Formats: sequence, structure tokens, C-alpha cells
Amino acid sequence: MSKVAIVMGSKNDLPVLEPAIEFLKKFGVCTEVRVMSAHRVPYAVSEFAANAAKNGIKVIIAAAGKAAHLAGVIAAHTVLPVIGLPVKSSTMDGLDSLLSMVQMPNGIPVATVAINGGQNAAILAVQILALSDKALTQKLEDFKKEMADAVLTDDKSICQ
Amino acid sequence: MSKVAIVMGSKNDLPVLEPAIEFLKKFGVCTEVRVMSAHRVPYAVSEFAANAAKNGIKVIIAAAGKAAHLAGVIAAHTVLPVIGLPVKSSTMDGLDSLLSMVQMPNGIPVATVAINGGQNAAILAVQILALSDKALTQKLEDFKKEMADAVLTDDKSICQ
Amino acid sequence: MSKVAIVMGSKNDLPVLEPAIEFLKKFGVCTEVRVMSAHRVPYAVSEFAANAAKNGIKVIIAAAGKAAHLAGVIAAHTVLPVIGLPVKSSTMDGLDSLLSMVQMPNGIPVATVAINGGQNAAILAVQILALSDKALTQKLEDFKKEMADAVLTDDKSICQ
Amino acid sequence: MSKVAIVMGSKNDLPVLEPAIEFLKKFGVCTEVRVMSAHRVPYAVSEFAANAAKNGIKVIIAAAGKAAHLAGVIAAHTVLPVIGLPVKSSTMDGLDSLLSMVQMPNGIPVATVAINGGQNAAILAVQILALSDKALTQKLEDFKKEMADAVLTDDKSICQ
Amino acid sequence: MSKVAIVMGSKNDLPVLEPAIEFLKKFGVCTEVRVMSAHRVPYAVSEFAANAAKNGIKVIIAAAGKAAHLAGVIAAHTVLPVIGLPVKSSTMDGLDSLLSMVQMPNGIPVATVAINGGQNAAILAVQILALSDKALTQKLEDFKKEMADAVLTDDKSICQ
Amino acid sequence: MSKVAIVMGSKNDLPVLEPAIEFLKKFGVCTEVRVMSAHRVPYAVSEFAANAAKNGIKVIIAAAGKAAHLAGVIAAHTVLPVIGLPVKSSTMDGLDSLLSMVQMPNGIPVATVAINGGQNAAILAVQILALSDKALTQKLEDFKKEMADAVLTDDKSICQ
Amino acid sequence: MSKVAIVMGSKNDLPVLEPAIEFLKKFGVCTEVRVMSAHRVPYAVSEFAANAAKNGIKVIIAAAGKAAHLAGVIAAHTVLPVIGLPVKSSTMDGLDSLLSMVQMPNGIPVATVAINGGQNAAILAVQILALSDKALTQKLEDFKKEMADAVLTDDKSICQ
Amino acid sequence: MSKVAIVMGSKNDLPVLEPAIEFLKKFGVCTEVRVMSAHRVPYAVSEFAANAAKNGIKVIIAAAGKAAHLAGVIAAHTVLPVIGLPVKSSTMDGLDSLLSMVQMPNGIPVATVAINGGQNAAILAVQILALSDKALTQKLEDFKKEMADAVLTDDKSICQ
Repeated sequence: MSKVAIVMGSKNDLPVLEPAIEFLKKFGVCTEVRVMSAHRVPYAVSEFAANAAKNGIKVIIAAAGKAAHLAGVIAAHTVLPVIGLPVKSSTMDGLDSLLSMVQMPNGIPVATVAINGGQNAAILAVQILALSDKALTQKLEDFKKEMADAVLTDDKSICQ
Repeated sequence: MSKVAIVMGSKNDLPVLEPAIEFLKKFGVCTEVRVMSAHRVPYAVSEFAANAAKNGIKVIIAAAGKAAHLAGVIAAHTVLPVIGLPVKSSTMDGLDSLLSMVQMPNGIPVATVAINGGQNAAILAVQILALSDKALTQKLEDFKKEMADAVLTDDKSICQ
Repeated sequence: MSKVAIVMGSKNDLPVLEPAIEFLKKFGVCTEVRVMSAHRVPYAVSEFAANAAKNGIKVIIAAAGKAAHLAGVIAAHTVLPVIGLPVKSSTMDGLDSLLSMVQMPNGIPVATVAINGGQNAAILAVQILALSDKALTQKLEDFKKEMADAVLTDDKSICQ
Repeated sequence: MSKVAIVMGSKNDLPVLEPAIEFLKKFGVCTEVRVMSAHRVPYAVSEFAANAAKNGIKVIIAAAGKAAHLAGVIAAHTVLPVIGLPVKSSTMDGLDSLLSMVQMPNGIPVATVAINGGQNAAILAVQILALSDKALTQKLEDFKKEMADAVLTDDKSICQ
Repeated sequence: MSKVAIVMGSKNDLPVLEPAIEFLKKFGVCTEVRVMSAHRVPYAVSEFAANAAKNGIKVIIAAAGKAAHLAGVIAAHTVLPVIGLPVKSSTMDGLDSLLSMVQMPNGIPVATVAINGGQNAAILAVQILALSDKALTQKLEDFKKEMADAVLTDDKSICQ
Repeated sequence: MSKVAIVMGSKNDLPVLEPAIEFLKKFGVCTEVRVMSAHRVPYAVSEFAANAAKNGIKVIIAAAGKAAHLAGVIAAHTVLPVIGLPVKSSTMDGLDSLLSMVQMPNGIPVATVAINGGQNAAILAVQILALSDKALTQKLEDFKKEMADAVLTDDKSICQ
Repeated sequence: MSKVAIVMGSKNDLPVLEPAIEFLKKFGVCTEVRVMSAHRVPYAVSEFAANAAKNGIKVIIAAAGKAAHLAGVIAAHTVLPVIGLPVKSSTMDGLDSLLSMVQMPNGIPVATVAINGGQNAAILAVQILALSDKALTQKLEDFKKEMADAVLTDDKSICQ
Repeated sequence: MSKVAIVMGSKNDLPVLEPAIEFLKKFGVCTEVRVMSAHRVPYAVSEFAANAAKNGIKVIIAAAGKAAHLAGVIAAHTVLPVIGLPVKSSTMDGLDSLLSMVQMPNGIPVATVAINGGQNAAILAVQILALSDKALTQKLEDFKKEMADAVLTDDKSICQ
């Protein structure tokens, strides 16, 4: 079965990833959650990334803050799609994380989502898996409809 | 056969997309190139996006500048993965395009790549398609190897 | 009678809009308050915007945060003046919302006011309506005078 | 007849305003073009703004760069809608002009458009006038259609 | 006797100005504290500024936030030195206030100090007055020495 | 006679200072132009600043780019007013120079003018000198009138 | 024995430096902690820096906020390596401190670390000392291994 | 003999590094120049960094642009001091490169110098080597003196 890996640069990033983990669980997607720093355990990251495809992983979500190299380093070792989730840290309001992730040089893209956008990282992963899984496509369409219904309900509630 | 759609907000964005078109051609990926503005032909965009999956499109690359809404608007109408390519315009050095694309609200991700990163948008699209196409995976690995070889050659040439 | 529509991208944006709603009420302007997301209910937004003029709406205030596409998407579907109100979100201090609203491409302007400037959005709407409503003009001039008087009173109170 | 005033802080800003002047001419809107600096001829600005309504002006477009105070100063003296057009200068890429215009305090809005967005300033002015001028509304709708047709033509031309 | 005027755009800016008021009091400089908004009471500002020299004012400190036009508008009406004090507001971390003050066009300078730098605004005013007041020069030199002593004391206390 | 010192961090900054030198010459202000780097000849800078008052200097204009410490370092050694002129360098569009100059800590102000605003630095210096020199005040008022006349002439020329 | 000097611009910066002091203590590096402001006690700074090498200091860590000149001023007086530690202050989120430190002109480098990155400043200092101290090299390698082990432990704990 | 390694992410970065190479040559420092991308040849980078100390390298200068991970990735594999040289690329004016380099997480510092500050990277490297090489210290002091003399000469030449 298809698997999504979620890698965070530090255990402190877990709260930003919880909406991602929850979303993948709700969608029944097999998920592997890892703590791996590109700077502290570089060999573990290389090995993880280089073997990810072999280990059944289809998409990798990498979350990190500040000089956020994790997603780029993973992308250097695999041709799997890598989703970058910039984490807001205590300075620079997330701009450093965003630019460190999204501004990748030619040849090694990172699919970057919004700062602290954990749920969106997971949705993007599921959208990718859904290309070869009709049940997931249906769930995404249902989710899209639920979101729409929630807005329409809010719209009614606020009417004046 | 799998198809990638490339949509640009204005014909002026074509130079930024040419590396993407070329890359997809080189990889033998069927590509549909479109000019569609979220602000000037909104219904065309909605219709295109809503029917994209039905029309055999697997991934959509959307390029736009300034208040770059195109990728987000497309993502609103489909559960296909949408890749956002921020285009640098004559002011703000691309920061406006980048933030307008990447900072999507929960529920509707846009997989954003570097400002003017046309080739990376295409590589990401191919990485997604390659999940169910072993030949593409092989080509990506070959491309990765070529890039590495080019660096190693540069490394030798510069040695002093 | 002339009507102003206030549209917010999410119910969470309501506190930013309350000064707008209150101002319009105080000025006796008929107001329609809506929750509609450009990304979650795009057809509702299109339909709302396309029919706004027909439904007696003269000016539309659109408030949104992050990649704030709502005002631009509404402006794509109507020739009514659209006022954009950028909402400060949890990251980037409102810069993302501001740039996503104000940097519209040629052809589809959004009249952008200050980040979280709810009251100013309403005043601008009334200024527009007042062009064909002398009573509103008088009320705006009275309001301007009240503001001036409040400053003069503060000036006296602080004198040392 | 309704009149739009275009005020620029310096004659050097004229190129940014030419698309605005041309657009208003094409739409048959009576236009008054002025050079007036909030810092060099403050009384002329006050007088102009205070008498604008009396002189048949309905909307004022104010263009300025750097610490761009012109629009705000005009708005201080009138209840007419004031459209701010931030001009990119030789440093700071227009960010200074944009923030100086859009971040107005409560009570005195400036309807800000994109940096160097001359045409959009004019379109917004016409949208406001069109609220009480059906012929202008029709012209705006025709213009919108022309823009759409141009995109559709570009779309066809680029098809591959 | 020489007088310094302190003008704030809103009574809310008072806390930022208190270190300035206190410093001037401590230095025995005659001070006039005013609340005057360039946008809400523009004529009061013009009149104040135009008559400031006549009224014995030598230096004007103007504090304002967001689109901070106050200092520039005052400078437009006088050839006295005008010190701009950018106030941090609830968004943009003071960058808007700073750029709106410091980026003045040629011909009308504003002597800008740090964001929320109330004391520095006062010191600068005293430095200017001291050019023709030896007692003030002496007090500034004493103050400089006190600051130095305080640092040397801190240095000793922290020694390890 | 009163003297203004102009200090630049590098000879390359001369073009930015030429409007300042020219303005002071035109106003008949005695000027001393120096090249002195806070980082390359720190003792020369300290000595210059510490003796400036003694040497008849009344105001110091300090121009520098990038990590622009010159003005702050001079201000550390004198109680004369120090005017900071941030110079735009090849990266960061002058933002680094501006922040390095204007954000001075409590106790040591730098009167910062616009990025590359050479003429404004000189005008500010003259405004300070004019406080005890009626002839200079008159010249400043004449200059202000000339600027106003130039705008009024431009206004007439552009009239349409 | 080799000594590292830690200099802070203000006693308020001490919390940012505590991780540095602690790290150096843990590594048994002789440390001198000083409070010295480039603006308040410039001669003390010059003297300290000019004599640092003579006094057995090998590396200097300088921490400061806002217009953070301390590191650059120290570097002007010594050829010892100077490490700059930008301190986040109450406005601008540390960007002013960072740019004021890192953007040094040619000839006088400052080795800048992350905003508020006290521990990293100390590690860098130790890395430099370790070049001629094998015991320190070993300790750094042990520290690197501890960090890696901590991540691996976190990785295990989070596994799901 | 001590050796400095200069690593660039792409051969295109060579012009930014030439002042570094030239400076090291002039100072007689043995230099190894390499082209190695953290993203394209990650294993080469790891191997290079892990063996650098063993191979006689004392300091590593790493230059890269955009999402500039090279310096951080090298620092992850060695306890040698790593100097980061952010390269300005075609968008974002070097801010992305700077933040990606300098904002390293705790534990793995990168000694960052100015954007495009090639010479400063080399000087910093020599300052580090000079700690155990008196001849280099002397050369650095001579270089500092030459710089000072050049400024003093410029100062004389400009005197007016």
C-alpha cells in the first residue's frame, strides 16, 4: 500500500505536523512519522531518503524552521515528490523557513506549502496519491464538499 | 496517457515557462499549454479546472505574477495536484507572486516552487507522474545522474 | 436603495469586519454580510459577484487573509467597485494578505485599504455611495468634523 | 458632467499615469491632470482637495512615490473617494510608496491600487462613476469582454 | 527661550513620547506637547507648523504610526528642523511608519530616529538647541558620561 | 563661521553626496568633505568626531552603505547633531544601510534621511544652522518658494 | 590558555548570551564576559579590541541589537576573528540587527550567526579554538554525536 | 600546511569567489577550490566534508545562492569552522541566500559574511588560521594598515 512519510527537523515541530498526521489518518493513508535533522543526523536523512522509494514511500513531507534545509536535502537523494512545510520559528515570522525551502535551485524542486500549513501538506500528499487511487479521489471530493458546506453554513449563520 | 497542463496568467509569462515545456517534451510527457487569467477569463479557468481530471490531465502547473491568484483559483475547482510557479514582475522582486501563491488557506494547497523556477515546476510534475510510471522514474534518475556528472565535470575543470 | 455587500473569506475574519458593519449601520447604509471563500465555494463567489449589481449591490467589501484571493476573484466577475481589506493572519504580519490584494494585474483593480482597516473599508464604501446621495455626503462631513473635534479635545487634554 | 482629477506628486510620475489618462480619455471621462506636491505646495493641495467636490470632481487619483503622502493629504481635505497610486522609485522597489499610501489610519481611507498600476487606478475611478452612469457600466463590461477575448486569442495562438 | 514642540498623531502614541517629554523636562527645555493628526485636523497642523517659528519653537518632534505623514506634512510648512519618530503599530512591526517618515522626497527632509525611539528624538532636539546654548552642551556631555558610567558599572557587575 | 562636515565611508559614495555638497555651496555654508571609514580608520573617525565641535563644526553628515556604522560611531564621540545618509549598495536595495543607521539604541540618535537623499541631508544641516542665522532662514524660505514655483510651473505645463 | 571574550552591547542582552556562556563553561574554555557599548563607551571598546590579542583572547563574540555596530567596531580594531550575534529587539524582529552585523564592507568581516543564536556563537568559537586543540576537537565530535543521539531517541519516541 | 577549501554550489558562483581566491593566494594560503552542490552531488559533499579535517583542511568557505544549503550541509559533517558566503541570485536580492545560510538551528553554526562578500570570507578564513600562524597575523595587520592608508589617501584627494 502507498505510504506517506512525514519528517520533522525537530520534535518541537510536532504541533505543526499534527493536522497533517490527523488528516492522513482520517483518509486511511499509511503514514510514517520521523524526527530527522539534516544537520544533526545527516547520514540518517540521506539513507532514509535514498531508500524511501524502495520502502514503499510515495510522498515525503518535510517540516523544518529557520534555515530549513531538510526538504531540500531529502529531495537531493530521491526522485519522489518532496513536500516542504516551512515552520514559523521565534524570529523572522517564518520568512526564513519559507525562502530556505521554496527557493530551490534548478533540478531539485521542493513542493512548498504555506508557513505552518500542516493540513495542506497532507492534502497535497493525498492529491498525489489519489492520481492512482480512485477511493482517495472520492474522499478528497467529499472533503472539498464538506469544506464548502461548512462555509455555506457559516454564511447562513452570519446573515443579517 | 498522462497529461500535464501548463497554464499561464498572461502570454508574457511564456519565457518563464519555456524551460518547463522543454523539460516535459524531453521526458515525453504529453503537455497542454494554455493562457488563462483568473481575473480576465474566470469562467474559462473554472471550467478548465473542473474538467481537467476528466480530460486526462494529472497535474496542473499554474504560472502567474503579482497578485498571483491563478494557481489558487484552479486548486479551488479540482482535487488534482496544482503546482504554483511564481513569476517575478516589474516590482517587488517576485515576493508578491510568491506569497500570493504559497500562503494558501487550509484545505486548498498549492505546491509552490521557486520564483521563475520553470524547470523545477516541470520536474515536480514528472516526479508525481513517475509514481505510477517506472519509465519516468528511470528518466528522472538518469537526469539526476546527468546533473551530478555535470557538477563533477565542473569540479574537475575548476580544480586548482 | 443602495446596498453594500461585505464578504469575508472565513467566519474568523468577523472581528476585523465588525467596525465596518457598525459604521455602515450608523450611516444607515443597507448592508449584506456574507461568508464566502474563493477557494472553498468558488461557484458561490462567482455567482454572488456576477449577480451583485443586479441585486442592488453598489459596492463590495472583501476581507481575507494570507493568499487573499477573494477580492480579486470577486472583481473578476463584476464591474462594481471592489474594496479589499487585507486581514492579518498568524504569520507574515499581514504582508502576504496586503500584497495578494493590492498587486492586481492590469484590468481588474481592487481598492485596497490598510491591513485590518475595517472601518476604513466602510468609509470608502460610503464615500462612493455618497457621490449620488447628498445625505450621506453630509454625514461623512459630520463624521470628519467629529473626528477633528475629538483630536482637538485630546489636544486640549494633553496640553502641558 | 462627472470629472476625475489625476494628481501627481512630481512631473516625473507622468509615465506611470499615462495609461490612466489614456483610459479615461478612451472612456470619454472628463479628466483634470495636475502636478501638486503635498510637500512643496501644501496649500495648493489643501485648496484643491477642499474645493474638488465643488468643482465637479467626483473621484481623485493621487500618484506619488517614496514617502507618498499625497493621497492621504488629499483625503484629509475631502470626503470624495481618493485612489492612491504608489509609484516605484529608485530604491525600495515601491514598498515605501505602497505602505505610505495604503496603511492609512482609521477615518481617512485611501483606495490603493498596485505599484505603478496606472490603468487600474483609472478603471477603479470609472467603476465608481459608473454606479450612476449606465453608459459607463456598459463600456466597462465591453472592456472586460475585450480583455477576455484577448486572453482567449492568446490561448489559441499558444496552443500546442 | 528656545522651545521644542512635540506633536503626536494620536493620543495613543503618548507612551512612546513619554521618554521624550521626560528627557526634555530633565534638561530644562521648554516643551509644548500637542495632539494633532495630519489627516484629521490638517488645517490645525498647517497653521501650527507655519507659525511655529514665530511662536518661539526651534525644533519639532512629530510622532506617528502606520502611513505616518505627520512629520512630512509639518516639514512642508516650515523650515525648522523636524524630527520624525516612527511609532510601531499593530501590524508591519513599524516598517510602514519608518518608511513613511524617512523616505521623504528631495527638498523636505525629516530627521528620522529609531522606531519607538522617543528618548532619542528628544536628545536630537537638545543637540540641535545646544549649538547655541553652552549649558545644554554641558548637560549633554554629562548625560553621555552618565551613560558611559552606567555601562562601566554593568560591565563590572557582570564580570566573571 | 559655522561649518558642516560631510563624511563618507568610501570614495565610491561621492556621487550620492554631490547634491549635498552643491547645496551647501549654493547656500554659502562652509563645508569640510572627508573620506573616513568607521571600519578602516576607526581612530581617525574617533579623533575627528571628538574634536569636531572644537574645530568649529556644527553639524556632521555621515554617508555609508551596507552595515552603515559610520554615523553611529561618529555620534558616539560627539554631542553635535549627526545626520545619517544611508547609501544604496549593490544588494538589499538600501534597506541594510537604512536600518543600520536609523535603529540606533537609546542615548545616541542619528538623524536619518532618505536612502541616497544627499540633498535632504544638506537641507537638514542648513535648517539646523539657520536656527541661529537669519540669513540662512531667509535662503531656506526662498528655496522652499522656488520649489513651490517649480511645481506650479509644472502644473501649468501639464494642464489638459 | 586560549580565551574567548563575550561582549554584549547591553546587560539586557545577557539572556541571549547565557547559552553561549554555559556552552563555553561546559567545554572548559576560559571565558571573559563583558558589557561594552560601541556607542556609549567607544574608547573602552577600542581599547578592549586593540589589546584583545595581547591579552590572550583568541576569539571575540559580540552580541547587540537594533543598529548593531558592536561586532563591526570591534573587528575594526583587531585581526582576531569576531563572531557577531544579532539580538532580536522589540521591533523589526531582528532583521535590523542581522543586517547591521552581516553586511560588513570589504576588508572587515564579522562571522555572523543566527538571530538570538547564542549557543551557535559559542560553538563556532570553540570550532576555531579546536583547530589547535585536539581535546576540544574531540569534545566537539562528542557533542555532535550527543546531538545526533538525541535526535535518534526523539525519532524512536515519536514512531507510529 | 594549513589549507582553506572554497566550495561553490555552482560554477556560476565563481565571479563572487574570485576575490576570495585572489586574497588567499596573495596571503600564501594553500587553497582548494571545488564545485559541489548539496543538492546535485550530496554524497560528494558529505564525503568531502567528513574527510576535510583528515585532508589537512582547516577552514571551509561555502558559497551558494537562493535556498543556499551548501554551508549548512557541510557543517553537518564536520567540526571545522564553516564560513557561509550568500550569493545574490536573480530574484530576492540575496535575502533568500542570506537567511538560508545564517539562520542555522542550534548546534551547527555557519559563520556567515555579507551577500557577495567574497573577500571577507577569505579574510575571515585567514583570521582563523592566523591564530596559530604569526606570519599570517602580521600580514593581516599589514593589510589592515594598507586599507587604512588607502582611505587616508582618498581623504586627502577629496579634500576641499
